[in-house]
Amino acid sequence: MGTALARAWLAAGHPVTVWNRTPARAEALAAEGATVAASAAEAVAAGRLVVACLLDDASVGEALDGADLTGRDLVNLTTGTSAQGRSRATWAQARGARFLDGGIMAVPPMIGAAGSGAYVFYSGSAALFEEHRATLAVPAGTTYVGADPGFAALHDVALLSAMTGMFAGITHAFALIRPEDIAPKDFAPLLVSWLTAMAPMAHQAADQLESGDYGKDVVSNLAMQVAANATLLRTAEEQGVSAELLTPYMDLMERRLADGHGAEGTTGLVDLLAPAQSA
Amino acid sequence: MGTALARAWLAAGHPVTVWNRTPARAEALAAEGATVAASAAEAVAAGRLVVACLLDDASVGEALDGADLTGRDLVNLTTGTSAQGRSRATWAQARGARFLDGGIMAVPPMIGAAGSGAYVFYSGSAALFEEHRATLAVPAGTTYVGADPGFAALHDVALLSAMTGMFAGITHAFALIRPEDIAPKDFAPLLVSWLTAMAPMAHQAADQLESGDYGKDVVSNLAMQVAANATLLRTAEEQGVSAELLTPYMDLMERRLADGHGAEGTTGLVDLLAPAQSA
Repeated sequence: MGTALARAWLAAGHPVTVWNRTPARAEALAAEGATVAASAAEAVAAGRLVVACLLDDASVGEALDGADLTGRDLVNLTTGTSAQGRSRATWAQARGARFLDGGIMAVPPMIGAAGSGAYVFYSGSAALFEEHRATLAVPAGTTYVGADPGFAALHDVALLSAMTGMFAGITHAFALIRPEDIAPKDFAPLLVSWLTAMAPMAHQAADQLESGDYGKDVVSNLAMQVAANATLLRTAEEQGVSAELLTPYMDLMERRLADGHGAEGTTGLVDLLAPAQSA
Repeated sequence: MGTALARAWLAAGHPVTVWNRTPARAEALAAEGATVAASAAEAVAAGRLVVACLLDDASVGEALDGADLTGRDLVNLTTGTSAQGRSRATWAQARGARFLDGGIMAVPPMIGAAGSGAYVFYSGSAALFEEHRATLAVPAGTTYVGADPGFAALHDVALLSAMTGMFAGITHAFALIRPEDIAPKDFAPLLVSWLTAMAPMAHQAADQLESGDYGKDVVSNLAMQVAANATLLRTAEEQGVSAELLTPYMDLMERRLADGHGAEGTTGLVDLLAPAQSA
């Protein structure tokens, strides 16, 4: 990912100094115009805007341990958790740097590719973000989500988690049709259209979470959905497919139904995963 | 759902005879021009095209037990499994009827509403489908998926199952942001855009399933994805959110990785849910 980012800035004519724990990776970028630093501290000394994209948060601390960060603008594009983003911000500020954390919503081939849809969530110093906005926009789109340096990672992980659920559903669906004479390539467009049409249900969930009224505008209530689950489970059994990817959500639905919320939709399941805070 | 369907045909000027186990429901349609039959057998006798939309498959057998189906075209829009669709087709054919099974991809308010995106999967008699295609297209779009009368229900359930996974992912994502000062209505558009952008990954999975080459065009391989799961799980823990909706899929990923498929993507997880048939 670091290589893809450096390439995008080099291609756009930005002066770039690179350092990598594995020198050969940095050397490969020299041919494209990068200056290769002998150490991370030397790379940091080369310019005001410092971009870190390493294996994990601990690697950032180790690599930059001996660097002078005074007056530097540190943009951390290393994958991590929200808490790591916050503690790394405190760490950077104590060393005299402004700090911006980023969560990259893309795989390397999408970086620097026009129209790829790649973007980065940023959070932390708004001043840093505004000052370097044009530069940050070179490799991928930019979405600033707040001054809390933990928010970029949290948005990143929340979207990846939602995607994990969707992929689990897609896996189960392909498993169901597998024993039949149904071509996956004929089935996939139906699946993609359906998921695309249903994803906006998240707007209704958001509306209900904001209002606290989980029964608002519900068409298919929890009691009806729990009844419908029986057909999904029976079908899985008929097709010889394990239902292990579906049952945890169905179990939550049944718990919520048992708690007397059958007339609501499924938004209240959020309460079972993360009890509402008494602020 | 039966009422919504009858209303759509009545509104389009089709003569409709209705029967419902609860007479008041049928009577409500009389004001809109429906003829009310005293029994299911009488409703069946009123016309060649017979549409059944009842509680479950057993109800269809009971309701039509005394009806003369000879020469009738029976369209079954009752929710059921693939196996129920097949056995109901055999049952109908033995009584002299042509049979078409349907799986409705909509909730009642979408029926008969232009641009709602509602549609029905149909499978079974292609001759019946072609002959009544225009009539069937009145309440919702039509998608014929094959002569096997079990295919409509299977497509229906497969799409609902995939949606269940996506909703589980959405639930987890909202739970993650809940403890923070992030408005669900600001988060929802990011979530919907991301899921919409990632849903087409199903096309790659279909391509790999058809070719049997699960390593084809893989950008983020299983080994990398399993490593990334640690950040998702650690974030859930930090946010006080149960990871129960994500772990079954992650467990499958780890099993597949342990089986030596780390260089592939996630398509091979289908093999763990439904072993490939030796045809």
